[in-house]
Amino acid sequence: MEWEIVGYAAAALTMFGFLPQLLKMVRTKSVDDVSLVMMVQMGLGVFLWMAYGLHLRNSPLIVANVVSLATLGLGLFVYFRYTTRRYFR
Amino acid sequence: MEWEIVGYAAAALTMFGFLPQLLKMVRTKSVDDVSLVMMVQMGLGVFLWMAYGLHLRNSPLIVANVVSLATLGLGLFVYFRYTTRRYFR
Repeated sequence: MEWEIVGYAAAALTMFGFLPQLLKMVRTKSVDDVSLVMMVQMGLGVFLWMAYGLHLRNSPLIVANVVSLATLGLGLFVYFRYTTRRYFR
Repeated sequence: MEWEIVGYAAAALTMFGFLPQLLKMVRTKSVDDVSLVMMVQMGLGVFLWMAYGLHLRNSPLIVANVVSLATLGLGLFVYFRYTTRRYFR
């Protein structure tokens, strides 16, 4: 099924979509241009997708969003580790 | 349907998930901590999701990913407008 490959490729690219940003934050220890709102909004969104997947008992939906949630959660951790925005401390 | 609301909320949060990052880049004119690879990978991913949605004639899949693709495309434009990484010019 050729079109299934397109779907799987799309899923793989987007479920690991935040990973390059996470790795860049870890490597450069510089995070101030990264939007905290983006990370929180995406994190809440993929959490709700995961909950919806659990409700539907849909494995791909659960797996993809658990992966995204993990990278975004680590992203938040790294963000607060390196941010120079003092009012968040 | 309570669970459908969860699905719609998840879709709304993630389809506009890159928007806060785009607005921050425009506002601060500072983009060097943002991962170019993240934008390209997510852009390619949502493009393939959109193509898959067109193949399936699935409107929510098409609409959500057209929105994401638009914000990511604008993000790339803004990135190259403000990056100080000279080797990209």
